[in-house]
Amino acid sequence: MAIEVTSEFLEQLNEYIAQNKDAAIKKLFDEVHYADIAEILDEVSFDDAIYIIKLLNSEKTSEILTELDEDIREKILENLSAQEIADEIGEMDTDDAADIIGELSDERQERVINALDDEELAADIKELLSYQDNTAGALMAKELVKVYETWTVAGCMRRIRGQAKDVTRVHSIYVVDKEDKLVGRLSLKDLIIAKSDQQIADILKDNVDAVNVNEDDEEVAKIMAKYDLEAIPVVDDNNVLLGRITIDDIVDVLKEEADKDYQLAAGLTQDVDSDDSILQLTKARLPWLFLGLIGGIGAFIIMEGFQGVFEKYASLFFFTPLIAAMAGNVGVQSSAIIVQGLANNDVKGSINSRLLKEMFLAALNGFILALFLFLFVWIYEGSINTGLAISVSLVAVIIVAGLIGTFVPLFLNKRGIDPAIATGPFITTSNDIFGILIYFLIAKLILGI
Amino acid sequence: MAIEVTSEFLEQLNEYIAQNKDAAIKKLFDEVHYADIAEILDEVSFDDAIYIIKLLNSEKTSEILTELDEDIREKILENLSAQEIADEIGEMDTDDAADIIGELSDERQERVINALDDEELAADIKELLSYQDNTAGALMAKELVKVYETWTVAGCMRRIRGQAKDVTRVHSIYVVDKEDKLVGRLSLKDLIIAKSDQQIADILKDNVDAVNVNEDDEEVAKIMAKYDLEAIPVVDDNNVLLGRITIDDIVDVLKEEADKDYQLAAGLTQDVDSDDSILQLTKARLPWLFLGLIGGIGAFIIMEGFQGVFEKYASLFFFTPLIAAMAGNVGVQSSAIIVQGLANNDVKGSINSRLLKEMFLAALNGFILALFLFLFVWIYEGSINTGLAISVSLVAVIIVAGLIGTFVPLFLNKRGIDPAIATGPFITTSNDIFGILIYFLIAKLILGI
Repeated sequence: MAIEVTSEFLEQLNEYIAQNKDAAIKKLFDEVHYADIAEILDEVSFDDAIYIIKLLNSEKTSEILTELDEDIREKILENLSAQEIADEIGEMDTDDAADIIGELSDERQERVINALDDEELAADIKELLSYQDNTAGALMAKELVKVYETWTVAGCMRRIRGQAKDVTRVHSIYVVDKEDKLVGRLSLKDLIIAKSDQQIADILKDNVDAVNVNEDDEEVAKIMAKYDLEAIPVVDDNNVLLGRITIDDIVDVLKEEADKDYQLAAGLTQDVDSDDSILQLTKARLPWLFLGLIGGIGAFIIMEGFQGVFEKYASLFFFTPLIAAMAGNVGVQSSAIIVQGLANNDVKGSINSRLLKEMFLAALNGFILALFLFLFVWIYEGSINTGLAISVSLVAVIIVAGLIGTFVPLFLNKRGIDPAIATGPFITTSNDIFGILIYFLIAKLILGI
Repeated sequence: MAIEVTSEFLEQLNEYIAQNKDAAIKKLFDEVHYADIAEILDEVSFDDAIYIIKLLNSEKTSEILTELDEDIREKILENLSAQEIADEIGEMDTDDAADIIGELSDERQERVINALDDEELAADIKELLSYQDNTAGALMAKELVKVYETWTVAGCMRRIRGQAKDVTRVHSIYVVDKEDKLVGRLSLKDLIIAKSDQQIADILKDNVDAVNVNEDDEEVAKIMAKYDLEAIPVVDDNNVLLGRITIDDIVDVLKEEADKDYQLAAGLTQDVDSDDSILQLTKARLPWLFLGLIGGIGAFIIMEGFQGVFEKYASLFFFTPLIAAMAGNVGVQSSAIIVQGLANNDVKGSINSRLLKEMFLAALNGFILALFLFLFVWIYEGSINTGLAISVSLVAVIIVAGLIGTFVPLFLNKRGIDPAIATGPFITTSNDIFGILIYFLIAKLILGI
């Protein structure tokens, strides 16, 4: 079904562009979905992208603009006049319009909004821009179908015909009282199966879920996912209906959230993708690597302190990468389970009971791994003592690493800090240092050095 | 809006259960959303959960069952008779019904399906069970609103009133020809704003997206997310309409996919959550830890081979945790960027150009970090030679780690293997070994040992 962007298509397009065959280009894009056109514009040169955007009509290009990669959109918007941007904006849903205007400089925002023909739209966009980032207000659209509880089904149908033209998808019809306060909802289905002389107040469903305009967008996503909602109305503190959030916006929030957690776990400090410049990628990668470097220097200083042990028990030193790796792996595993549990709201019980469970778990894992390591050292080195020292310290290191991995995200979460930063390099680095220190201390104790 | 499960509520509930106050319990749950009841059942004892399930009517409990944690649902279903399960199933949408029946043993599946009153439902469920896991067929529901292209708008509305009662949400009305082949779609909005004597064939939209019943479910999720679809019809090879997939199912697929990638990156081999038993968690965690152990033993053998260097350049050994950590971190960073890029479909260009870019990037990062490390070693150890040897090898190690991290997921993806397994412990472990080997080789070369 989806049209794959073939190289033949691109060749044809380039040929038409070279020959300025505007009509042919328009025709080429006629049957192509705007999401596919956005992908094509990612592929062609920047000048060609501008050329195509200016050629196609704004009904189509407005959709394309919302789909484009942010970097490319920014460059394209720089090349359009305030009036041209206003024409595009005029075709968009209010939430997309506000998002795109929000990317412009304050001064350009002003000019684009002034260039809008539709005063109501301008007011809606200004309102949406006024809400804080990552709140329900910043996510919602003003488009919705609203009816008054006093209307009849027939009257309702008549008026909905007017409102519905502006609303891409009618999920729910929201019922308000004369002060515009939300009192219930209806589906189109309910209207269709009702009798035409019934009053809305008699057929509305009054158990309508709504979120406050200042609610956190991730919270809204959780609520919609939990209750399987496809749209949710947004109200102010007085329950006045302000807008609605649809599930496609939530899909984006969930995806962004998952991407962010994944990147934090992988040691990337900001949202990057593989096509970003080397400089952007360096900015995202270097800070965590630097942390790793500091940790490595810490491990160096600790090991230097145990230098005297080398002559008799050199193999202790050769096992430090193993100890560090195990401490890091266990820490990441336990922190990832907690971070994911917190994200899915299913971490219950006290911190202490969590730590107790993790201790048993780490002890069990540690014991199995240590047994294997003991056999290896015993057979390979021929020394029961060294084997015992290394294996016992491995168990201790794994337990401590598991406890740190469990405690840190729970602690951060209690303090209102995103626990996801506790995964990845942060845990690995601190566990490396603690692991190596514990390892040498215990091994020294057992070997009686 | 969402009812928080308060401890007062649970206390009240426990009191009523102890006193067998059935009517009071029913009343208590009257206004509670089924998703919240599912959470409450997670909290109470298993016997109480069974008691509550048997008490509430099947319209409500069927919804609760679909929301419950799989482990708990399994136990509850074991305590219900085939007839009781069939009553629950009868109230569910076909996709949920098939999912739940699919969790039963073959023999119980048979009995539950035979106990269903509704023969059409039984046939639908059998059909859905016949599709392979993780395909569009396994994800779709049979409920949809279907009209024939020859009908008029008025006739259509009349018949939709009948069909729509069974369909929780009418996203689209699908238009088929007399052989049940999909020819177009309509929204309820289109119907409402059309004139009642128009023919469906005249007002349908014929550019309807559909997916094949054997399509991979993650592919379906990508298509729906890309084209902002809220529902997509599913057809067989002859374009005959079989069912539809709605966006709430896709939200689950996306969430599962993100969770899986995250868990793979964290070194968890199977889907676990923090409430699972110690045994389940051990099964998920131990295999990757074992891999780490083998890697650590590999690193031990390499370091033992360089034992002779120790007397003159002991500090080389003290920097191995630093080298291993940097190799691991860089590898995870570069593989995560590729894995995420592949998941979002925006890794373009050849493997060679990717590797070249990563090489420059790693060289830049490596140079900055090595400069810092050189200054530390020089000042702390007072030896320019050692500093130089360690720093130069660090750059080499970082470049190799970055190349491995970039190459492995691209290679796996080309081979049709999920690239996400290349993140986490797999990359860390192999980079530890390669890193330490390269480090000692280059350092030896520079120091002329």
